[in-house]
Amino acid sequence: MQVTDFYVSAPGKAILHGEHAVVHGKVALAVSLNLRTYLRLKATTSGKVCINLPNIDTFLSWDLSQLKQLVTYFHGKRDEVQRLDAELVRRLREFIGVTNGNLDTCSMATLSFLYLYLSLFGSGELPSLTLTVWSELPTGAGLGSSAAYSVCLAAALLCASGAIPPPLKEWEHTARWCQEELELINSWAFQGEMIIHGNPSGVDNAVGTWGGMLRFLAGKIIPLSRVPLLRILLTNTKVPRSTKVLVAGVKDKINKFPSIMVPVLDSVDAISCTCEKVLSEMTCEPITGEHYNILEELIDINQHHLNVMGVGHPALDRLCQVTLAKGLHSKLTGAGGGGCGITLLRPETDSLIVQSTVQELKDCGFDCWETSIGGPGVQLLHLKGSTTSNGRIFLQGVLTSCTFQSLHFSLLPEERN
Amino acid sequence: MQVTDFYVSAPGKAILHGEHAVVHGKVALAVSLNLRTYLRLKATTSGKVCINLPNIDTFLSWDLSQLKQLVTYFHGKRDEVQRLDAELVRRLREFIGVTNGNLDTCSMATLSFLYLYLSLFGSGELPSLTLTVWSELPTGAGLGSSAAYSVCLAAALLCASGAIPPPLKEWEHTARWCQEELELINSWAFQGEMIIHGNPSGVDNAVGTWGGMLRFLAGKIIPLSRVPLLRILLTNTKVPRSTKVLVAGVKDKINKFPSIMVPVLDSVDAISCTCEKVLSEMTCEPITGEHYNILEELIDINQHHLNVMGVGHPALDRLCQVTLAKGLHSKLTGAGGGGCGITLLRPETDSLIVQSTVQELKDCGFDCWETSIGGPGVQLLHLKGSTTSNGRIFLQGVLTSCTFQSLHFSLLPEERN
Repeated sequence: MQVTDFYVSAPGKAILHGEHAVVHGKVALAVSLNLRTYLRLKATTSGKVCINLPNIDTFLSWDLSQLKQLVTYFHGKRDEVQRLDAELVRRLREFIGVTNGNLDTCSMATLSFLYLYLSLFGSGELPSLTLTVWSELPTGAGLGSSAAYSVCLAAALLCASGAIPPPLKEWEHTARWCQEELELINSWAFQGEMIIHGNPSGVDNAVGTWGGMLRFLAGKIIPLSRVPLLRILLTNTKVPRSTKVLVAGVKDKINKFPSIMVPVLDSVDAISCTCEKVLSEMTCEPITGEHYNILEELIDINQHHLNVMGVGHPALDRLCQVTLAKGLHSKLTGAGGGGCGITLLRPETDSLIVQSTVQELKDCGFDCWETSIGGPGVQLLHLKGSTTSNGRIFLQGVLTSCTFQSLHFSLLPEERN
Repeated sequence: MQVTDFYVSAPGKAILHGEHAVVHGKVALAVSLNLRTYLRLKATTSGKVCINLPNIDTFLSWDLSQLKQLVTYFHGKRDEVQRLDAELVRRLREFIGVTNGNLDTCSMATLSFLYLYLSLFGSGELPSLTLTVWSELPTGAGLGSSAAYSVCLAAALLCASGAIPPPLKEWEHTARWCQEELELINSWAFQGEMIIHGNPSGVDNAVGTWGGMLRFLAGKIIPLSRVPLLRILLTNTKVPRSTKVLVAGVKDKINKFPSIMVPVLDSVDAISCTCEKVLSEMTCEPITGEHYNILEELIDINQHHLNVMGVGHPALDRLCQVTLAKGLHSKLTGAGGGGCGITLLRPETDSLIVQSTVQELKDCGFDCWETSIGGPGVQLLHLKGSTTSNGRIFLQGVLTSCTFQSLHFSLLPEERN
């Protein structure tokens, strides 16, 4: 057991093309969203396990002795990650006092943490440690915030347990794991997702793990080798919606008008394939304005198709109008019916245009971030963070030269121990 | 020759579904638009032929002796209507002084009138008469105003020449011709259209002749037996556009993204077929709210598809927004890129809603009419119009009980001569 202090981060996820169509056997493209979740793991000698989740006001700690009682039966197969250990889940639910009904965010986060912690350390000595996880991602917005959390947990705990080695240094301040290790991280993150979502598709944790772009078709997830980093605005209209109701609505519409709707799904499929082709070209030939023109056209066409499916919303129309008035192209991402949208920024898009667009979108009552898609997956950060007298860590200076784009540590919480 | 005084009218045309897709071998549905063109034919003893076109400020007259010189060669085959008599067209262009270049509206209207007049009367004695034609249709807006003019001319002159008998009385004040006679009217109207447009599709004059709805597929025009009369708003955004440029743009987009665009055309085709089926059901079973729901959904989907084809316009988006805010559904009709849009009104749509919608659209700078689609084609009106001291005819009282819906005679001009 080699518990040392370190940081990991994992990206959120956006659907670039193919939302809803994917339910009907068509290709979807999921991309990493560089609004990231960060985890700090700190070895302690307190005899306690602490988890701090400042975004959801959750600060919990348990004595190791309490936790040990939960794993008396434990066989400790760390690579048996095909399905959940139902007995452990049952014991944990009892332990945190949520034996029935739906779990709230705090309980789900706690449950998945304890599940991974005990699964990975239960066969040996339980380590004292403090985990702090915070995120730039809004929760419940379809941006894979729970997956980014699970990926961070899996990577940090696997690394701390020695199941995977510290990753190879990639850049000055970041490091990534090799393929086999990423697969293990992804498998354990999927377990966390199963606890949180019941029956997740596996796309979100795969994007959080591999980053870049994934092709998702008929349940198969294929990470794509190379994609360019694209500047975007991510806008959360904050209009609440039910993914289940939206998916059912699309299905009803297809059943009602099959001859009209099936071609629309075919067209969306072709949009995903065309987009994948263009992005692939952008990594192996000089990027031109025409590449961006095509990406913009695909965004516009797909947004119309999503409206045809009935998953648009006046707030999303507003997003499209506001951005189009600035020469920018937007579409909803994810379930629609409100929720989030993405706006493609061109390399030459002036920062004044971006700023005024962000301001106008905020004036509409939306949250809006300038960020990027297609960036790296889970990473370990080599940080020289210094703890101040009140426990706050300053990372800003260290990170300015690293690969993260528009990384803001405003969310970095006071660490509690 | 049995020239008597009478009135005929013919409707304009709107494309309900399938514009642009029709160019690529898909079905389009053309419907009659109850903004009509009216013609009054008055027998005179002046030895002159006069034509008054108040909408375009054209008031012309010729001595019969002048016109007789144009037909010295004339063989007078009245049913040879497959193609234009090129020699007559050449003589007429010379006669009105437009031997080369594009013709203005006034010259085209004059040329087609004289062509039909001389073709139908040239083999015998030329009658003295005064024709007055006025219209509720805006010109150059893709609403078949030239075809409605040609249909009125053809019907009136065929009737006056005795080539077709006065039609059977249909209602108290209107009468229609039988199928064979309508075919003759349509053929001659097509000649008028050829003079005006060069290479017309024949759809506009067919709608003007038969009214109701026509299915247009691969150059074939099939009048549909029965369709319900639907209340609509017809809005002219007055944004100028070039049909030629728009058609070329769609073609380019299909060539650029065939896998994305071909399914969209298939979907539009299915929309037209579904709409035809629903309208047919509405004539043979009780009309329900669900029929209207489907018509509204088809309108929305097609409008999105037309945007995908790139023939939308912010003014049309505005039309859709303003009407949707009132619970009404709109799409562009015709070439798009500005031009006109139609908004479906439900039977239960309150007149206050309609009025306030019309007002809002007018406030956007648009022209807007409450009218209907699917109404009758060319008709003869039995009118007891009385000429006042200044020559203006009052028809209002006579027409209130007839089949025309929302018929306004505000355009009725002073008759000259």
